[in-house]
Amino acid sequence: MIPNKVLEKIDKAKNILIITHQKPDGDAIGSTVALGKGLKKLGKEVDYYVDQNFEDKLRFFNEIEEFNKDLKDHYDLVLQLDCSTYDFTHHPESLEYDDLVVIDHHKSNAYDKESNYVKVTAATGELIYELLETLGIELDDEMKEAIFTAISTDTGSFQFSNTQASTFHVAEELFKDGHVFAPVSKRLHKQKSKQQLDMYADAIKAIETLKDGKICVITLPYETIEKNGGDLQITDDIANIGMDLDTAILSVLIKETEPENVRVSVRSKSPYDLDVSKLALEYGGGGHLRAAGFNVKGNPEEIKKEILGKIEEIFEI
Amino acid sequence: MIPNKVLEKIDKAKNILIITHQKPDGDAIGSTVALGKGLKKLGKEVDYYVDQNFEDKLRFFNEIEEFNKDLKDHYDLVLQLDCSTYDFTHHPESLEYDDLVVIDHHKSNAYDKESNYVKVTAATGELIYELLETLGIELDDEMKEAIFTAISTDTGSFQFSNTQASTFHVAEELFKDGHVFAPVSKRLHKQKSKQQLDMYADAIKAIETLKDGKICVITLPYETIEKNGGDLQITDDIANIGMDLDTAILSVLIKETEPENVRVSVRSKSPYDLDVSKLALEYGGGGHLRAAGFNVKGNPEEIKKEILGKIEEIFEI
Repeated sequence: MIPNKVLEKIDKAKNILIITHQKPDGDAIGSTVALGKGLKKLGKEVDYYVDQNFEDKLRFFNEIEEFNKDLKDHYDLVLQLDCSTYDFTHHPESLEYDDLVVIDHHKSNAYDKESNYVKVTAATGELIYELLETLGIELDDEMKEAIFTAISTDTGSFQFSNTQASTFHVAEELFKDGHVFAPVSKRLHKQKSKQQLDMYADAIKAIETLKDGKICVITLPYETIEKNGGDLQITDDIANIGMDLDTAILSVLIKETEPENVRVSVRSKSPYDLDVSKLALEYGGGGHLRAAGFNVKGNPEEIKKEILGKIEEIFEI
Repeated sequence: MIPNKVLEKIDKAKNILIITHQKPDGDAIGSTVALGKGLKKLGKEVDYYVDQNFEDKLRFFNEIEEFNKDLKDHYDLVLQLDCSTYDFTHHPESLEYDDLVVIDHHKSNAYDKESNYVKVTAATGELIYELLETLGIELDDEMKEAIFTAISTDTGSFQFSNTQASTFHVAEELFKDGHVFAPVSKRLHKQKSKQQLDMYADAIKAIETLKDGKICVITLPYETIEKNGGDLQITDDIANIGMDLDTAILSVLIKETEPENVRVSVRSKSPYDLDVSKLALEYGGGGHLRAAGFNVKGNPEEIKKEILGKIEEIFEI
């Protein structure tokens, strides 16, 4: 159920600004596009202030052309999407408004649940769908694809443990009139250039394992990266190859992005007690329990040896 | 709606044999396990005759231990799952039965739709879900995971264009009591052995493109397959690499699984009007608009040339 106060504030507002988090992902962009277009259908004036620093694969919504255009000094209502704190939003330096309403699915969100729409779901896109349905707004194909993008991104194509019955319910509604979403799924999760595929294959071929396959190390020297079109052709999933390997519980990707400039990504597999941020901190990097990274200067083979030594010291594998 | 004749035949039968296609995939195994366990709950004697030649990642159902045990000489009913021709099933050499009912989702299935349950859906698993629901059988967790395995496999985790509103509806029902399917998804779509990763990398390295990258052909000669541990190390996603390539709209995977025994998988990308089952039918195979396959004997390089000729004839690319 959407709080009445949220519906009242939307009803009252004539002009609305939508904001979301920095480096927006598929949930942020999809939620923004779907809600913005929906509110316009209700006759609202909608502006968007969105960090433009996001992946190319998300740039297929026409509505993105309206982002960051003709901003006003004052808004009746600001809608903050997919973000549990205002600090982490991308927002104009000085922003004046009568009301702010948060629509977010993060567990850590501490905004009051009476005047905001905060509910733990797989994606903010689910909440946007419910809101548009409650407001009686018909979804056009772009809005449907935007909500699908939100959900598909945050659930890793319905694979992560946050996926719920309600997630599938929204997907069912989106698919009901026969619109085909396969091209969007492909775009979000599969499509690669030949260079990206080759880089991926070279990364697999570079796998070295230690400790009966429990540790997986991939080293990509500059020549390999250059041959396949440079650092930008290294897709996210390359850092996760080690985690896809059935035997591995800790993995290290060492990439020499420029000669002697080395970026290291470390991953560990649940449920093992291996906090990879500890390794990253030793090199002035950062991250989380299961994913961390840092930069080092030097020869990638020598760096590999050093890192493997540190892993031996820090972790019991 | 499930044909009355199908329900009557199941009702009448005391002992039932379930068969499915050769080299069963997730849809075949998942459908078999869910239906078999369900019919046992109805008090039926159920046996399974299933080709044991399938991927390790599917071997997580306890019910698999019952496969191919204590087979009878005669069955009241044989249920043929996920298979559009009897020839393509894995079946006992001499099989006696009173009735045979086909439950299958393939478009190319030509069995009569009055006495079989043949309907185009994303997976046979969807039909099994509907059947179990109609029969009033409660699903245990293994049956839920079996149906999820069927659907998740055949839709590529809800990404392929065969995914429909009804597919999500079934998933929603499976998720309703909070059972978490993330470990199954990981098992089906992510975890790989070193040999499987190597095979995948070799497949990428074998990519050839034609027509400005619109056609993608991958040929895996027997030596490559043998080197990486054999046919069973060829994961489903290898047949889809061509579709992952951004430029490709039609792809062919030619694998010499045994010397001179060649299996061909063809894929086409939506929304292009390329019905790849047409090509498969020319070789006595079958499939769908977007995914089809067939077997040929001969040298893989020569077969490749011939197939490319046929593609030129059939499709305008």
